[in-house]
Amino acid sequence: MKSERLRALSVPRSSELTLRGSTRLDHWAVGRIQQAVAPAPLRFVLWDGYAIGTGDAPIATITVKNRTALYKWLWHPELNFGDGYMSGAVDVHGDLVEMLEAVYRAMGDSAPRPWWLPEPANTPNASRENVHHHYDIGNEFYRLWLDERMLYTCAYFPTPDATLEDAQIAKMSLISRKLRLKPGERVVEAGCGWGSLALFMAREHGVHVTAFNISREQIAYAREQARVQGLTDRVDFIEDDYRNVRGQCDAFVSVGMLEHVGLPDYATLGSVMDRVLTEDGRGLLHFIGRNRPAPLNPWITKRIFPGAYPPTLVEVFERILQPSGFSVLDVENIRLHYAKTLEHWRARFLSATDRVTEMFDEAFVRAWDLYLAGSEVAFVTGSMQLFQVVFARAGTNAIPWTRTSA
Amino acid sequence: MKSERLRALSVPRSSELTLRGSTRLDHWAVGRIQQAVAPAPLRFVLWDGYAIGTGDAPIATITVKNRTALYKWLWHPELNFGDGYMSGAVDVHGDLVEMLEAVYRAMGDSAPRPWWLPEPANTPNASRENVHHHYDIGNEFYRLWLDERMLYTCAYFPTPDATLEDAQIAKMSLISRKLRLKPGERVVEAGCGWGSLALFMAREHGVHVTAFNISREQIAYAREQARVQGLTDRVDFIEDDYRNVRGQCDAFVSVGMLEHVGLPDYATLGSVMDRVLTEDGRGLLHFIGRNRPAPLNPWITKRIFPGAYPPTLVEVFERILQPSGFSVLDVENIRLHYAKTLEHWRARFLSATDRVTEMFDEAFVRAWDLYLAGSEVAFVTGSMQLFQVVFARAGTNAIPWTRTSA
Repeated sequence: MKSERLRALSVPRSSELTLRGSTRLDHWAVGRIQQAVAPAPLRFVLWDGYAIGTGDAPIATITVKNRTALYKWLWHPELNFGDGYMSGAVDVHGDLVEMLEAVYRAMGDSAPRPWWLPEPANTPNASRENVHHHYDIGNEFYRLWLDERMLYTCAYFPTPDATLEDAQIAKMSLISRKLRLKPGERVVEAGCGWGSLALFMAREHGVHVTAFNISREQIAYAREQARVQGLTDRVDFIEDDYRNVRGQCDAFVSVGMLEHVGLPDYATLGSVMDRVLTEDGRGLLHFIGRNRPAPLNPWITKRIFPGAYPPTLVEVFERILQPSGFSVLDVENIRLHYAKTLEHWRARFLSATDRVTEMFDEAFVRAWDLYLAGSEVAFVTGSMQLFQVVFARAGTNAIPWTRTSA
Repeated sequence: MKSERLRALSVPRSSELTLRGSTRLDHWAVGRIQQAVAPAPLRFVLWDGYAIGTGDAPIATITVKNRTALYKWLWHPELNFGDGYMSGAVDVHGDLVEMLEAVYRAMGDSAPRPWWLPEPANTPNASRENVHHHYDIGNEFYRLWLDERMLYTCAYFPTPDATLEDAQIAKMSLISRKLRLKPGERVVEAGCGWGSLALFMAREHGVHVTAFNISREQIAYAREQARVQGLTDRVDFIEDDYRNVRGQCDAFVSVGMLEHVGLPDYATLGSVMDRVLTEDGRGLLHFIGRNRPAPLNPWITKRIFPGAYPPTLVEVFERILQPSGFSVLDVENIRLHYAKTLEHWRARFLSATDRVTEMFDEAFVRAWDLYLAGSEVAFVTGSMQLFQVVFARAGTNAIPWTRTSA
């Protein structure tokens, strides 16, 4: 199973044969890299054995295997460390997560997004391209390391030692509870992945769900699941953009889609919700966010999630909820649950690398390993947040009296 | 017990003796007022009996007793309806809360705060003046209608029929739980009212509290309570501005103070919190807010709360939390609990009007009745919100695993 994505990831590995010994300039270069993450106890080694950084018990040793990778890294670390690692020109001996956590903590909080940075819009066509890039690389691939219900969003662990399967059910249950779903209600889901939440809400809460997704492979899978589970009369899976959502619903839910919407289209998403929600309707947005505006890591943007952007609560409230006068009822930040989710995903992924290498190649495996490890660390260190926001219209009093009231 | 405030409220009542019959211009004027709230089933009556509006079963009849009150109302309704009501030149027959709710709903959401509106800063001196204006009009007065512990902020009713006393205890308990207070920790409270929350946290959770307030009467009362309750070794009540908070604390809490801070000083409040909170510290802000930026009703600003402003979450996050990189952990909107709290306060207030009239005068009673009724309606209709925001530093993982975990 080969795809465009796979070819894009198969970066040629630099030849290691013709390398000369490292020069004083090379030493200066690796010195700069080391200083940038100085408090992190790491050892850096060049192709000829030249080494700097922590000598005694480093938490990891990073080997740079050729000069091109060294200078690319120095020139644009956030982009080219990842590409070097992916191609194998940069290698890490030691625990990848521990190494990345030390680096994140050494570098402190992400720099704010510069004011002059463009806000790239995701048109329906661009959205389709971006989504295709990530989500259509094969259901078989995702089946290797996601839970059995194929949920590719942050789980909710009632206790830290819960299984991933249980935690994904607990997440769907948490969302349904926050939405106060009642039998017979109409729910719109924008960005439904492989359909598990839609099916769960229909089955467990007796609601009718219209679920939208622009990933063809995911929609096909979801429809098949609806058929197998006998829920085709209560769940409609629609291959279309969230912008085309029509009709009326009692609850609007979107889990892990907002990151792909793009700031310029937030107002559109707000209008869509305003158009479809009934007077007493409730909404829930579940998304990866930030404490301060900052672009997504450029390597992740290039190799993993083109067009993605994790927003701040300010960006979400000001651009999506405020224009329609929606009232924020509840916000919960469960970032540590995403760290735990990613830990599970990566463990499963790592135990399936032989199969993934067969399906794609080694560079793909290394890229996804780095993406999963780096994401885990982003949530562990508080560089990224996971927000669940519940909202309703300002004027409705059909809202919960307390968090625990029925 | 007379004060400056009392004199300010004793507006001379217009003479009703020399009024002529109403003219066509007067009819046009009252017609304009009626049309502005047209869907509301109200009847308007002028001094000579001329009447318009709902004839059959209006929910209230509003009588305008002289020409001055009529044209002042027409010219600036948000300011002068209140002054007319206060002086008795405007009277309402029917339930004041029902009447105001109909008007709020008829007028829809508050207009957004115009961009050119100044953001008045509350300097320490201005803050002292503003606070003195409202909170120093006599502990005796507030004792007539607050709960026995003198909490003058939104209560939390476990069920809607809980008593006000129980609901105020439940509120203090909720805040302590959200802050995850542990015995021996240091807490800073900014704006402590009559001190009940500080005393509760010290007594029930074994923490040491340093509580700030610039209201002299409140601080004197709070100190006496600490002495009576034998808590002087664990609670320090300090008569000073929040800007002068020093030292380090494990928890920072502010209940009902933010409304008095003023937008231009939000950054200062954020710096204060950043300066005093330990690495694993938690913070909680409890405040009246809005869905969209809008000024406080000008009559309330003039007569009740000078310098007050209920902010949006966007304003709070962007100006207070974001600059220091704080992480929002939890937001709860309990506006219906404030409506219920105000319902209790007003019922107690109305049963003590004889005593309040003795202490002040009739105009004072009418003004406070209108303020309490209007505030209840603002929360019932969703024009105002009550937010509790829990935050921590981005990098700490000493945060709750779930909302219910110990």
